Amino acid sequence: MYPDEFPRNAWYVAARSAELTEGRLLPRFLLGDPVVLYRTGDGSPVAMVDRCVHRQLPLSLGRLQGDRIECGYHGLTFDTDGSCVRIPGSSRISDRVRVQTFPLIEGDGLVWIWMGEPNSADPGQIPDHQWYTAEGWTTAAGTLHMDARAQLLNENLLDLSHLSFLHPESIGSPEIAEIPVSVSFDERTVTVQRDMRAVECPPFFTRVTGIDESIDRRQIAEFFAPAFHITTTTLKPAADGDDSRMARQKTMHAITPETRTTTHYFWSVSRDYAVQDQAVTDYTLDAVAGVFEQDIQACEAIEHIIASWEPSYPLELNIKVDAGPLQSRKIIEKMLTTEGAHAGARAQDRFTDTATRAAAKAWTARAETLRA
Amino acid sequence: MYPDEFPRNAWYVAARSAELTEGRLLPRFLLGDPVVLYRTGDGSPVAMVDRCVHRQLPLSLGRLQGDRIECGYHGLTFDTDGSCVRIPGSSRISDRVRVQTFPLIEGDGLVWIWMGEPNSADPGQIPDHQWYTAEGWTTAAGTLHMDARAQLLNENLLDLSHLSFLHPESIGSPEIAEIPVSVSFDERTVTVQRDMRAVECPPFFTRVTGIDESIDRRQIAEFFAPAFHITTTTLKPAADGDDSRMARQKTMHAITPETRTTTHYFWSVSRDYAVQDQAVTDYTLDAVAGVFEQDIQACEAIEHIIASWEPSYPLELNIKVDAGPLQSRKIIEKMLTTEGAHAGARAQDRFTDTATRAAAKAWTARAETLRA
Amino acid sequence: MYPDEFPRNAWYVAARSAELTEGRLLPRFLLGDPVVLYRTGDGSPVAMVDRCVHRQLPLSLGRLQGDRIECGYHGLTFDTDGSCVRIPGSSRISDRVRVQTFPLIEGDGLVWIWMGEPNSADPGQIPDHQWYTAEGWTTAAGTLHMDARAQLLNENLLDLSHLSFLHPESIGSPEIAEIPVSVSFDERTVTVQRDMRAVECPPFFTRVTGIDESIDRRQIAEFFAPAFHITTTTLKPAADGDDSRMARQKTMHAITPETRTTTHYFWSVSRDYAVQDQAVTDYTLDAVAGVFEQDIQACEAIEHIIASWEPSYPLELNIKVDAGPLQSRKIIEKMLTTEGAHAGARAQDRFTDTATRAAAKAWTARAETLRA
Repeated sequence: MYPDEFPRNAWYVAARSAELTEGRLLPRFLLGDPVVLYRTGDGSPVAMVDRCVHRQLPLSLGRLQGDRIECGYHGLTFDTDGSCVRIPGSSRISDRVRVQTFPLIEGDGLVWIWMGEPNSADPGQIPDHQWYTAEGWTTAAGTLHMDARAQLLNENLLDLSHLSFLHPESIGSPEIAEIPVSVSFDERTVTVQRDMRAVECPPFFTRVTGIDESIDRRQIAEFFAPAFHITTTTLKPAADGDDSRMARQKTMHAITPETRTTTHYFWSVSRDYAVQDQAVTDYTLDAVAGVFEQDIQACEAIEHIIASWEPSYPLELNIKVDAGPLQSRKIIEKMLTTEGAHAGARAQDRFTDTATRAAAKAWTARAETLRA
Repeated sequence: MYPDEFPRNAWYVAARSAELTEGRLLPRFLLGDPVVLYRTGDGSPVAMVDRCVHRQLPLSLGRLQGDRIECGYHGLTFDTDGSCVRIPGSSRISDRVRVQTFPLIEGDGLVWIWMGEPNSADPGQIPDHQWYTAEGWTTAAGTLHMDARAQLLNENLLDLSHLSFLHPESIGSPEIAEIPVSVSFDERTVTVQRDMRAVECPPFFTRVTGIDESIDRRQIAEFFAPAFHITTTTLKPAADGDDSRMARQKTMHAITPETRTTTHYFWSVSRDYAVQDQAVTDYTLDAVAGVFEQDIQACEAIEHIIASWEPSYPLELNIKVDAGPLQSRKIIEKMLTTEGAHAGARAQDRFTDTATRAAAKAWTARAETLRA
Repeated sequence: MYPDEFPRNAWYVAARSAELTEGRLLPRFLLGDPVVLYRTGDGSPVAMVDRCVHRQLPLSLGRLQGDRIECGYHGLTFDTDGSCVRIPGSSRISDRVRVQTFPLIEGDGLVWIWMGEPNSADPGQIPDHQWYTAEGWTTAAGTLHMDARAQLLNENLLDLSHLSFLHPESIGSPEIAEIPVSVSFDERTVTVQRDMRAVECPPFFTRVTGIDESIDRRQIAEFFAPAFHITTTTLKPAADGDDSRMARQKTMHAITPETRTTTHYFWSVSRDYAVQDQAVTDYTLDAVAGVFEQDIQACEAIEHIIASWEPSYPLELNIKVDAGPLQSRKIIEKMLTTEGAHAGARAQDRFTDTATRAAAKAWTARAETLRA
């Protein structure tokens, strides 16, 4: 069955770099917890639990005083390391008064957060996603939200046979689902590759590359557990003897649980063709968001089914194309077993998950107000 | 107390015949389960669980390929008997790969479904509802939805004393509630009859029959457990020595649980007077829908009360007019006891019922999209 | 932690006097129960459980027949003492057929209800709130609603250090939070006093009093457990040798639980300055509602946090200014212990509380329909 838990000892994309601007608070639920993000005067990103230790007011209802955040209720003030530096009406402050902060790593346009056991935070575990900013490539990027658990997207992205059926009018063609894949994996990654010879060029690629003939196409779906994917598509006319007309595309998908059953979806499509063509970028933004909305619609419908069956689960059939998705489950389940309770996850029953979803929605509304 | 369960070994109206058109999928929650309905090329209606056995995508998000339904996610294809005839990427398909289908019976404008133990499905149990299409009668029909459990409507329809208080401006008159009823029943039906001599003609009947004087009126409320009612009204001027001006009306109510606490309400009013008069049909459509909306508003308010008391139940007083409604509860409780778990109902706690209600709402929205 | 229960053996404000007019029903959830309020022909207010003992229909869906209320479903009719005086179709009515009524006390513009053990209802426990109608004072009043538990507002009102941070642009000034308070209490009241010498005059007070110089200001926050507050503010120019320019303000706050996690907030601001100045009244209405909306926004954000943590509770730090709020919790907890189950509270789990909140919202919508 689709897991509804997620590891905490892992890096997740918390925000795009562009979302953090000096002097503005960004409230956001991440991994079921309220987080407030901001950028200090020297440009460093900061993330802390969005909840005052005194009377639970979200700190994002407060205000920045320089690099420090002042609670909007009774004025407790916290420094970037989470330490409390002011309690109005009190002259002494115990060192133990602090809010939890989270390690952040910023690079290539993304801000990554570690919400698990702090000592385990190893920046080396962040997948290379340099295409977002690489020379010779152009990127179109967007952010979506899904009312369904993150693992549904993880599995969607590891079984691209769905392109034939869910996206036939854009990036899919009928043959894809029938062509076998090769699957490889290690402790933290799964790679699913499919090579297609002399297949139809799907409408989207004809539009953006100008290729309107039979193509050779390769898909490589790489999953970096628990929350990142790079989908590489290369295609060229099947008749070509060389790669001079080859088009390469790297689609990155950062799948960050907002709550156990809702998900932030940060995506970008980098391409090495038509790199100067803004019309292609604009069309890609529009078309890809449309494709991903189809994925989201499918996942949300499945989440409805799962929710209607809970606490049991409907029977599930596994078929050949599930090798990649099933491997992703195994990795995530092993990560969960390894980290145990040390990573700091709060137990949540279905009722609390529902309340957390409502809270997350209020946080997103607050973020929109603060952005305006 | 009002039961919140419903028997599965029974026929329920799943749809009006007119809702099923070739080439279009109709997704609908029935008895707490997602069902997809469609009509094949030869006109036969089909119903199956609206959930692919592979990864739970609703089949109604897929597409018809001839008479077969192709899952919109990974292309598994199911025949009208539920058997899987294609798994893209797999050459062998086990006979055990199938989705559950449901027996359907179509007639007199309605499509009836049997969602319980298939071998018990006896078409002879479907109540005669031929007035819908009978010679010499004209019918006005509509469909409503109620955010309350089906049994609330069953009991509403078996105690027509409520006409005096809930519908005084249309089909009720003050005397109704004071006039005693006779109640009879057998294992599957309850009949409540009330004969009124020389009573006021309610506004609705004056409008549609032209009778504006004291009348003799008879109500016969017949319940065919667990989900169908025929309410017969006959009236004629009390001063008349014969039946030459008698007006007869047969109101059929199919009360189909969508979930444990929401209900589809398919109704029709057939009349033997003013049969050619479209204005009377139009007025009936409007007025009767208004009356039933009042019933729905009452039932929804009661459902709020019950939900606020759960898991306990507020004290309940029974009075004379409850004989019919209480008999309907007994029959339903006996049906539930008899069928046990064999009929295939999934246990649902209140939380899951809430999730199922949200899913049912999403299914209805999808049906509206597909209809457009 | 913030309690989510409330005593029942206590007086709560059920409505403003002006809300009850002869011939109109006012449905409202109070303390988690549906109540219908109305005023008889002789002007007496009446409150009873808004639920017919027969089949649970809210009586507020019925109609007044003189001073009696007739159920809108089957016509059972209840007198002002809750006794059933008519059951259509039945000639005998047992004395035990009755709906529960609640003691009411009306005075100074408010209608108070006692929903606990009836014999304990002592009118002497109602706090004096005569400023609402007192000679030489003018009052601006309003009603608000909060999607959070009542105790959050109780604590808000007992720690006015929050004015510096939550209301700096209106009634707060930076010094407030740093000036110590004195706290006193007895079995049912808590009083928190803060005296400020030569502090800035906050914008609101400059606007309404015309004082635009350093002031001496006194705040007295009085809590009358479990549901009423009088906040007294006096201020005068610090340079004045006498009280000739002293402005006095009495803000009354009736905090009535609607459900365990939603709250009615009836407020009024009485002043002894500019008593004839309608422009000041208008400005006060607007500005004070704005201030209280900020309090509500804060409490609702905290309620989201609590709900996301339930059934556990996030760690909480207590600081000096919490002395008053913590005392209010102790009093309420002691009241709850004392009354035990005798006061008639129904046990409600989180799920039922959610259902009750949905019901309360439907009741408010019905009240608005009936008012129109």
